[in-house]
Amino acid sequence: MQYIAAAIAAGLAALAASYGNGQVISKTLEGMARQPELSGQLRSTMFIGVGLIEAVPIISIVVAFMLMSK
Amino acid sequence: MQYIAAAIAAGLAALAASYGNGQVISKTLEGMARQPELSGQLRSTMFIGVGLIEAVPIISIVVAFMLMSK
Amino acid sequence: MQYIAAAIAAGLAALAASYGNGQVISKTLEGMARQPELSGQLRSTMFIGVGLIEAVPIISIVVAFMLMSK
Amino acid sequence: MQYIAAAIAAGLAALAASYGNGQVISKTLEGMARQPELSGQLRSTMFIGVGLIEAVPIISIVVAFMLMSK
Amino acid sequence: MQYIAAAIAAGLAALAASYGNGQVISKTLEGMARQPELSGQLRSTMFIGVGLIEAVPIISIVVAFMLMSK
Amino acid sequence: MQYIAAAIAAGLAALAASYGNGQVISKTLEGMARQPELSGQLRSTMFIGVGLIEAVPIISIVVAFMLMSK
Amino acid sequence: MQYIAAAIAAGLAALAASYGNGQVISKTLEGMARQPELSGQLRSTMFIGVGLIEAVPIISIVVAFMLMSK
Amino acid sequence: MQYIAAAIAAGLAALAASYGNGQVISKTLEGMARQPELSGQLRSTMFIGVGLIEAVPIISIVVAFMLMSK
Amino acid sequence: MQYIAAAIAAGLAALAASYGNGQVISKTLEGMARQPELSGQLRSTMFIGVGLIEAVPIISIVVAFMLMSK
Amino acid sequence: MQYIAAAIAAGLAALAASYGNGQVISKTLEGMARQPELSGQLRSTMFIGVGLIEAVPIISIVVAFMLMSK
Amino acid sequence: MQYIAAAIAAGLAALAASYGNGQVISKTLEGMARQPELSGQLRSTMFIGVGLIEAVPIISIVVAFMLMSK
Amino acid sequence: MQYIAAAIAAGLAALAASYGNGQVISKTLEGMARQPELSGQLRSTMFIGVGLIEAVPIISIVVAFMLMSK
Amino acid sequence: MQYIAAAIAAGLAALAASYGNGQVISKTLEGMARQPELSGQLRSTMFIGVGLIEAVPIISIVVAFMLMSK
Amino acid sequence: MQYIAAAIAAGLAALAASYGNGQVISKTLEGMARQPELSGQLRSTMFIGVGLIEAVPIISIVVAFMLMSK
Repeated sequence: MQYIAAAIAAGLAALAASYGNGQVISKTLEGMARQPELSGQLRSTMFIGVGLIEAVPIISIVVAFMLMSK
Repeated sequence: MQYIAAAIAAGLAALAASYGNGQVISKTLEGMARQPELSGQLRSTMFIGVGLIEAVPIISIVVAFMLMSK
Repeated sequence: MQYIAAAIAAGLAALAASYGNGQVISKTLEGMARQPELSGQLRSTMFIGVGLIEAVPIISIVVAFMLMSK
Repeated sequence: MQYIAAAIAAGLAALAASYGNGQVISKTLEGMARQPELSGQLRSTMFIGVGLIEAVPIISIVVAFMLMSK
Repeated sequence: MQYIAAAIAAGLAALAASYGNGQVISKTLEGMARQPELSGQLRSTMFIGVGLIEAVPIISIVVAFMLMSK
Repeated sequence: MQYIAAAIAAGLAALAASYGNGQVISKTLEGMARQPELSGQLRSTMFIGVGLIEAVPIISIVVAFMLMSK
Repeated sequence: MQYIAAAIAAGLAALAASYGNGQVISKTLEGMARQPELSGQLRSTMFIGVGLIEAVPIISIVVAFMLMSK
Repeated sequence: MQYIAAAIAAGLAALAASYGNGQVISKTLEGMARQPELSGQLRSTMFIGVGLIEAVPIISIVVAFMLMSK
Repeated sequence: MQYIAAAIAAGLAALAASYGNGQVISKTLEGMARQPELSGQLRSTMFIGVGLIEAVPIISIVVAFMLMSK
Repeated sequence: MQYIAAAIAAGLAALAASYGNGQVISKTLEGMARQPELSGQLRSTMFIGVGLIEAVPIISIVVAFMLMSK
Repeated sequence: MQYIAAAIAAGLAALAASYGNGQVISKTLEGMARQPELSGQLRSTMFIGVGLIEAVPIISIVVAFMLMSK
Repeated sequence: MQYIAAAIAAGLAALAASYGNGQVISKTLEGMARQPELSGQLRSTMFIGVGLIEAVPIISIVVAFMLMSK
Repeated sequence: MQYIAAAIAAGLAALAASYGNGQVISKTLEGMARQPELSGQLRSTMFIGVGLIEAVPIISIVVAFMLMSK
Repeated sequence: MQYIAAAIAAGLAALAASYGNGQVISKTLEGMARQPELSGQLRSTMFIGVGLIEAVPIISIVVAFMLMSK
């Protein structure tokens, strides 16, 4: 039963992180194609955003590992 | 049974935080690409917004940890 | 059985708060990028809005904690 | 069984209130960014609207508490 | 079994009322931001509309209370 | 079993009436904001429409009460 | 078992009639707001349309009553 | 078992007929509001269309009655 | 078991025919409102299209009758 | 069990054929309303397209008949 | 059990082929209505595309026949 | 059990290939109708794209055949 | 049980790869139709993108083969 | 049971990575077709973005392999 639980936690974390990152990075690319002189600023904001987004999914991954080791 | 419960709580928290953060950060990037001189103000509002959004998912993560330790 | 119930209540609360907050904060950022001179007024309305939105999800979190302690 | 019922009632109430409030408050912010001189009138309508929207979800929360105390 | 039934009836009533009210009140705010001189008329129509919308969900709440007291 | 049936009938009736009423009343508000001189005519059509829409959900509520009293 | 069947038939009929009526009446209101001189013609077509739409849901309601009386 | 079957057949028929009729009649109203001089022609086409659409759902209603009488 | 099967076949056939017919007839009405002089040609194509669309759902209805008579 | 299988195969075939045909025929009507002088060419392409689309659903109907005769 | 499997394979193949073909043929008709002098070239590409699309669904139909003959 | 597995693998492969191919081929037709002088280049890219898309679904078909022969 | 698992892994991999590839290749075709002089550069980026997208689905296919050989 | 878990984790990881990558790479192609002189910068950002997106799905793949080896 805990194996299914670990798979659900890891799979939903993967979906969540990919959805959020995909949205942020594609907006960054759109912004860079429109205003190339802002690319440094946009890219640094992108890194901050990716870090903030991946915080909770990575805790969910940790939950998955803890569920597997039980 | 409590393992499935922990996985559901952690996975939904990851989905929720990624959805909300992705929406806010991509709007910030869109705003910065349109008006570069407001980037400091937008970024500080973004940090406040990310903090407000992650409040409830992190409590849900706490619920997941409490369910696992039972 | 009550563990699943706590997870459902906490997970749906996280989804609900993130959806509502994400919508409100991204509208605030959009408004600030369009009219920078209104940023104080928009931000104060945003804080009121976030407080009003998080009222019911936080009660749902309380329901989750009460279900876990039973 | 009544624990699952309480969780469903509380979770759906959280989703409902957040959806309705998020829609109303974001429209208020949109209206304030377009016509700043109407901000007082819009904000007072927003408070009325939030009160009207939260009426039924809060009864649903009451149902959840009554189900838990049985 | 009747507890689940009460939760379903109350939860769907909350969703229904919030969806309908959110749609009507946000349209009112949109109309007020576009034509401020009509705000009294729009607001009175909004109160009538909210009353008409909440009629059936409140009967559904009554159904939920009757199911709980059985 | 009949309790679940009553909850389904009442809940779907609430959803249906709120969806239909919300759509009609928001269109009325949109029309009134665009042409204020037609507000009486639109409002009377709105009352007819709300009455026609609520006919079938109220029969569904009656079905729910009949199912509960069995 | 037949109680659940009656609830499904009545609930789907309520959803169907509200969806169809809501679509037709909101289009009528939209047309009346755009061309007020056609309001009589549009309203008479609306009554015909509502009658045609409610034909099949009302037979479904009849099916629900027949299922309950068995 | 056959009661559930009759409810599914009648409910889906109601949904199908309402969806199709709602789409056709709202298009007719849209066309009449745009070109009032074509209203007779559009209305006669609408009656033909409603008849063609309701053919298969009414057979499905017949299936529901046959299932109930077994 | 075969009763459920007949209901599924008949219900899906009703949904399918109504969806296809509704789409075709509403496009015909849209075309007639835009170019009234083509109404005969459009209407004859509409009859052909309705015939072609209803071919497979009617076979599915036949399947439903065959399943009921077994 | 094979009756359910036949119903699924026939129902999905009806949905598939109606979706595809509805899309093709409505595009044909749209094209004819925009360029009436191409109506012959469009209609002949439409017949080819309907034939190509109905190929696989009709095999699925054949599967349904084979499942029923077993 | 294998009958359900054959029905799923055949039904999904019908849905897949109808979706893909409907999309390609409607784009062809749209292109022919916009540029009639390219109709030969578009129609030949359409035949190639329909052939490529139907490759995998027909293998799925073959799987369905192999499952039935077991 | 392995028959259901083969049907799921083959059916999802058919859906996947039809979705991807339909998207690519319809974009090719759109591009050819807009710029007829590029039709050779677009068609060759289309063949490459169809080959790349069908790679993984065909491995899924192979999985289905391997599951059936077990 | 492992056969269903292999089918789920292979089917989801096929859906994922077809969705991602279809999106990338159709954007490439759109870009080539708009700016034919960039076709070499776009096509090389397309090959890189297809390679990056198919990485994870092919590992999922490997998982499916490993599950079948157990 | 752990085989199903591994398949869920691997399949959701494939879906997630393909969705995120497809979104990012198609935005890159769109940006390159609009501003060819930025293609180097966009492509390097694309590689960073693909790396960031694939981080969590690859951990999910690792979870799948760990579940299979148990």
